[in-house]
Amino acid sequence: MKKKSIAIDMDGALADTESQYLAYYEQEFGERLTKDIFRHVPEAEALPNGCIYKFLYTPGFFRTVPVMEGAVEAVKKLQERYEVYIVSAAMEFPLSLSEKKEWLAEHFPFIHWRNIIFCGNKNIIDTDYMIDDYCKNLDYCKGQPILFSAGHNLGVNHHIRVQNWTEVLNMLLD
Amino acid sequence: MKKKSIAIDMDGALADTESQYLAYYEQEFGERLTKDIFRHVPEAEALPNGCIYKFLYTPGFFRTVPVMEGAVEAVKKLQERYEVYIVSAAMEFPLSLSEKKEWLAEHFPFIHWRNIIFCGNKNIIDTDYMIDDYCKNLDYCKGQPILFSAGHNLGVNHHIRVQNWTEVLNMLLD
Repeated sequence: MKKKSIAIDMDGALADTESQYLAYYEQEFGERLTKDIFRHVPEAEALPNGCIYKFLYTPGFFRTVPVMEGAVEAVKKLQERYEVYIVSAAMEFPLSLSEKKEWLAEHFPFIHWRNIIFCGNKNIIDTDYMIDDYCKNLDYCKGQPILFSAGHNLGVNHHIRVQNWTEVLNMLLD
Repeated sequence: MKKKSIAIDMDGALADTESQYLAYYEQEFGERLTKDIFRHVPEAEALPNGCIYKFLYTPGFFRTVPVMEGAVEAVKKLQERYEVYIVSAAMEFPLSLSEKKEWLAEHFPFIHWRNIIFCGNKNIIDTDYMIDDYCKNLDYCKGQPILFSAGHNLGVNHHIRVQNWTEVLNMLLD
């Protein structure tokens, strides 16, 4: 039987971008903020003075972002039952293409290049499930959308929400 | 009314890769071959001694490939009636990601980054039409597959074939 397919987002799902923003902010301004600053705030506005966009355009940002807790083991387990695709919005930030590919090769070497997709929007992606932290992606999903919780999406109520990778496994492997 | 969508391939459709192979071959071996060498031969075997793969891994190959005749004007016209996505297999060749993005920016600056997708396989792409020179992509197409003619696909009979961009426009704009 053909495996069901899952599209998994990188930033905010496999990659802990909130932690990376905080690390970059601390390095530049010497102040250690907490993830609370992201709660109920649009991602781009969570840090002052356009810092978010500045960091996103900084070489190395995507290459060195920490892996989200539990993501590696979760994806391995999902692969046993599902056809897993990594579907990441990478076109807006020119550096992100090669950095994201290298990051995946380092942390998720068990994902074949055939199953990696870097896109602009995700409107024409058709999988049975989509795990993402953004409604702009999930709202177009042709299968079952799964909202990966993040500070910026706490006000979203129209998608199934998971708090972490343990909850993803509980949902998709049970 | 929502526009119908088209996924358009790069290599062998927007990009004249056969001409680029011949140019690289002539530069290296001093011999000018013709496109006849590609007829009814798997693409990777059209040139001797693994030349094709060597060229594909050469920096600059994708960045400097000639535009297929008529492609720029055709895509502009298609955009008036369709939502056009560029969907290119770029994951196999590490250099191709940034080179393909720069190539599109140079020759097709009117295509927004939101409409660009670089992928491994195209199995989860869902558009109303797909224009491609490879069955491995078209056979999974959820909409109407359109085979863009190339030497390597001359033996394929199970998809609608177009010889050039004029024929694409005749099919999709009439």
